[in-house]
Amino acid sequence: MKIESIDFFYLSMPSVLDIGDGSQDALLVRVRAGEWTGWGECEAAPLVSIASLVCPMSHSACKPVQDSVLGHTLDSANDIRAIGDRVRANSLDLLQADHTLSGIDIALWDLLGRRHNEPVWRLLGYTRNHDKTPYASVLFGDTAEETLDKAHTIRAQGFRAAKFGWGPFGAGTLRDDELQLQAAREGLGAEGILLIDAGTVWKTDIAAARARLPALKAARTTWLEEPFVSGALAEYHALSRDSAPVGMAGGEGCHNAHMAMHMIDHAGLSYVQIDAGRIGGISVAKDVADYAAQHGVTYVNHTFTSNLALSASLQPYAGIEDHVISEFPTELKSLAVDMTTNHIKPDHNGTIRAPEAPGLGIEPDLDAIERYLVDTEIRVAGRTLYRTPALR
Amino acid sequence: MKIESIDFFYLSMPSVLDIGDGSQDALLVRVRAGEWTGWGECEAAPLVSIASLVCPMSHSACKPVQDSVLGHTLDSANDIRAIGDRVRANSLDLLQADHTLSGIDIALWDLLGRRHNEPVWRLLGYTRNHDKTPYASVLFGDTAEETLDKAHTIRAQGFRAAKFGWGPFGAGTLRDDELQLQAAREGLGAEGILLIDAGTVWKTDIAAARARLPALKAARTTWLEEPFVSGALAEYHALSRDSAPVGMAGGEGCHNAHMAMHMIDHAGLSYVQIDAGRIGGISVAKDVADYAAQHGVTYVNHTFTSNLALSASLQPYAGIEDHVISEFPTELKSLAVDMTTNHIKPDHNGTIRAPEAPGLGIEPDLDAIERYLVDTEIRVAGRTLYRTPALR
Repeated sequence: MKIESIDFFYLSMPSVLDIGDGSQDALLVRVRAGEWTGWGECEAAPLVSIASLVCPMSHSACKPVQDSVLGHTLDSANDIRAIGDRVRANSLDLLQADHTLSGIDIALWDLLGRRHNEPVWRLLGYTRNHDKTPYASVLFGDTAEETLDKAHTIRAQGFRAAKFGWGPFGAGTLRDDELQLQAAREGLGAEGILLIDAGTVWKTDIAAARARLPALKAARTTWLEEPFVSGALAEYHALSRDSAPVGMAGGEGCHNAHMAMHMIDHAGLSYVQIDAGRIGGISVAKDVADYAAQHGVTYVNHTFTSNLALSASLQPYAGIEDHVISEFPTELKSLAVDMTTNHIKPDHNGTIRAPEAPGLGIEPDLDAIERYLVDTEIRVAGRTLYRTPALR
Repeated sequence: MKIESIDFFYLSMPSVLDIGDGSQDALLVRVRAGEWTGWGECEAAPLVSIASLVCPMSHSACKPVQDSVLGHTLDSANDIRAIGDRVRANSLDLLQADHTLSGIDIALWDLLGRRHNEPVWRLLGYTRNHDKTPYASVLFGDTAEETLDKAHTIRAQGFRAAKFGWGPFGAGTLRDDELQLQAAREGLGAEGILLIDAGTVWKTDIAAARARLPALKAARTTWLEEPFVSGALAEYHALSRDSAPVGMAGGEGCHNAHMAMHMIDHAGLSYVQIDAGRIGGISVAKDVADYAAQHGVTYVNHTFTSNLALSASLQPYAGIEDHVISEFPTELKSLAVDMTTNHIKPDHNGTIRAPEAPGLGIEPDLDAIERYLVDTEIRVAGRTLYRTPALR
């Protein structure tokens, strides 16, 4: 069958706040082929990804993303991979294209799974769908006392793992950070898996990061995430030499397989964190998961939007039994909750899995989506290149 | 003084053809502060960079680029660097932002140079503006005979260097490529500097690239450019081990300093080719030039649009005496020629230099620009976020 339409829907909360919460807007993707429909999601900056879908061609290696997708064949996993290769070649000089492709690739896998009546992880070649241990992801409190309270709450909710992120961490005194780490460990209990996200606070400053290692070790931190920006391979690697048993984690900024492989090869990572909505979709994320497993690095999903995105991010490593930690957004805005009729929830053992239902196993809620839809129009040289499409 | 306005102008030829010619459209940037105006250019995909300038915020690390520029102070080179740092932090999750920042950074340097009555290369700390040897950049002919003719013409025009790119090269038989290389060398004469651009044709296929090395060596090729995609560091490195005296060249796809540094550190490059209109502007390009010089890699500009972009691309290495090869577009579409009133031309010795005039030393031709202006409008949730601004 042929791909007949690609529709992008820009969704947003009524007001978007200047806070580190990526669930405040969304770019929902619908792809249709034959009698089938698939759904996906591109991470961040909806308007920019819409523009890259429909923009006029600049030259032969800078074409709108839709030109490499619409009208092409979709019968097999290889067809999806061919579409990704075509987008990367035809939109080589269009920087945003990787993010735009991500949501389309996810929707294509969803569509193919629905058509073949198989979950995506089976189409990816996995025969089993293993339990993952979700971690609750929250910001550090403004004070160590607040962090202690947050950790107590997370533990009471049944989570075995928690990640505390940035907020005041790394930007104040060493003593402040020590107290924060002690509070997080105390609240989580001796058995809890403690993860710390520095949110690139030290950019490329190895000394500032190294100064926190003793406190991170004392709190028995499993990983230190994003001490530096994604490109700082040498800095990551230098820090990793002194960090054991605390592992280096990073990778959410990667927008193609090469970037993630460079982090695995050169940054001394123990955990590579991949957002399927950014790296080019499930196809590329699966390649990175394979590469990580071969190189002794643990794959982890990066997700902070809807459960559609969460399902997409779980598929690439659903079948890798010993890569068990999973990011599980716990403080989503209503948009990200409402936009799907079903949700991925921890079971009685506190673990989650990719859905068993066909495709991504997540159904969009069109009534809810309509309430968050942002009317958008792009006109170039007297032609309307984009207008918010009809939902039904 | 404060930055008062950023205006993006989308320019295009009446029709854009599906060919490897990047001069068919342009995104011209005008920045105003106090009584001063500066001009810059973003490489490729005008509509997408416009969208990233004005898009609604997604969250605290995904803001429209203009939010990190408008209203901020511009008195010194450090202010320009602070603006770049702010864009990279505030638009961390907005992939297109590096390309968008590029044109703004270029315009800021132009403005600052005009205000201080100094060429940009002086503001960058260079005391001298060294001669560069321009190479004429053309496609291989469809046959070896055509390539021979092209090389004869280039030589007759007084060029000492020429780059032949892709077209049929690398995609056909080995014998075809041998004949093409022999023709290029013969037409250019024994003394000519011969550069070959594979245009990423082998993607990551080391064997296909290696098979061409004997012919490249026999034709005394100075560099082999882009045998692989930019991210293929390991493949570049593997090929570089067997390629001497043919040097590896690449880097045009880099959109931040880290990517270029990784190529320098891990790809076995002899030449790093940087487009100031993509990598984040003159500021980032200068950092890469410094890093390249320190690591024994020769810096080369990448430019295939207007002379405004060419001036911007020459500034970062204008003062490096022994990095002399320079990309000089010779087959520009009328848009790219007409949009400036003055042009950079080889002198009687066949060399070019960055202009001595203040700023970038290139004046936009508003009458001509008006003829190529593409009327563009973006509306989101009932508000007009962008409409083609007034040129005067």
